[in-house]
Amino acid sequence: MPAIEVVLVRPQSEGNVGAVARAMMNFGLKELVLVDPECEIGVEARRRAMHAAEPVLDRAKVFKSLTRALARADMVVGTTGVKTKNPKKFDRISLTPREFVDKIKGFEGKVAILFGQEDFGLDRKTISKCDLLVTIPTSEEYPIMNVSHAAAVIFYELFQAGARVWKSKRAARLEIDLLVRQFECLLDAIEYPMHKRRKTTVMFRRMMGRAVLSKWEYHVMMGVLKDAIREAKDG
Amino acid sequence: MPAIEVVLVRPQSEGNVGAVARAMMNFGLKELVLVDPECEIGVEARRRAMHAAEPVLDRAKVFKSLTRALARADMVVGTTGVKTKNPKKFDRISLTPREFVDKIKGFEGKVAILFGQEDFGLDRKTISKCDLLVTIPTSEEYPIMNVSHAAAVIFYELFQAGARVWKSKRAARLEIDLLVRQFECLLDAIEYPMHKRRKTTVMFRRMMGRAVLSKWEYHVMMGVLKDAIREAKDG
Repeated sequence: MPAIEVVLVRPQSEGNVGAVARAMMNFGLKELVLVDPECEIGVEARRRAMHAAEPVLDRAKVFKSLTRALARADMVVGTTGVKTKNPKKFDRISLTPREFVDKIKGFEGKVAILFGQEDFGLDRKTISKCDLLVTIPTSEEYPIMNVSHAAAVIFYELFQAGARVWKSKRAARLEIDLLVRQFECLLDAIEYPMHKRRKTTVMFRRMMGRAVLSKWEYHVMMGVLKDAIREAKDG
Repeated sequence: MPAIEVVLVRPQSEGNVGAVARAMMNFGLKELVLVDPECEIGVEARRRAMHAAEPVLDRAKVFKSLTRALARADMVVGTTGVKTKNPKKFDRISLTPREFVDKIKGFEGKVAILFGQEDFGLDRKTISKCDLLVTIPTSEEYPIMNVSHAAAVIFYELFQAGARVWKSKRAARLEIDLLVRQFECLLDAIEYPMHKRRKTTVMFRRMMGRAVLSKWEYHVMMGVLKDAIREAKDG
């Protein structure tokens, strides 16, 4: 994964700056750059950032000009809420966050992700400097997202691609087979109608497949089935 | 796709309620339910919702109790920031937003997505009522997301999946309840150890939730359980 730098271009609301800092911490991002901020980064920013995200604000770099801010970036990515379906408007054709992350995950370098002013977004001049544009798919009825929400969605996609996603220990296929066999034994013990057994067994396998059992769930279900078979046979 | 209802359980900050309403509008969701709100829904909520999202606030339903709020839901989904790697803590094993959306996209019914109190999330009792749990993968260093950010990420995943639609008649929540009740009867009939019953029952509910049963699967499973109970009792 590349190194990610989050660049807020002329932010106007310190609450939003704080909220973006918090979302950065949530997804393991730490480099924040503010270009020509039109608000203070004071109490309200810190309140919205929450305690854990203060280091992001403390270490944020502030630049007067975008050019200087982007001097060390190997790739510049603009985020925009304005979409076009017209391929002639090439400078507005953009990727979804997922397509974007797919594209850059093999990239080794510094990627600057730009977020523009609340409600207005990035201006044309800034957009023309971007190597890539990203647009979050939204409802046409009301596409204008809060900047920290848009940031959270993009950071979430980056995190999913880069981080080890936590997985519970899943029951292996062999264990599912044993569970299905046990279920067949139960059908046998309760003298389930012969002509329905195959279909019902397949259905059970499908259900267990979709439920994606943990090892523990597998053991508990085996136990319940075993007890039920014993009780039925004793009868 | 199912109909989605967004349920805020005892929200404390009207700013967050407004921000969630805005995120809903961004992703085409319109049904908001507030359970026992601890804040007013006034000027600040409307300011954060922005003009376009006001209809969501205007139409929001307010209930005093969670039970009444969920009366019409076919599936109840809890969102939680607390992860566990211990598979025995079955009631905390959860899906990522993407896995969740993959699971429910064929579901025809009403899905209630619950968000808990800012910073604390949903309490244990509420969590045990959920058919499914969803957790956003985050940095371990600072996993606590702002509730409207978490909502935006989940709505974004729902919106992305919305395009592709396929249908199957899904067992309604009432039927799942009956299935779980039947399972409890089986545990009773096989004299399953008392101290394990509650946990095993919650596990079964979760498994059935994750498996997203069709009406047909529901009827077949009810039949198998009924037969097993009868055989066990005859013994």
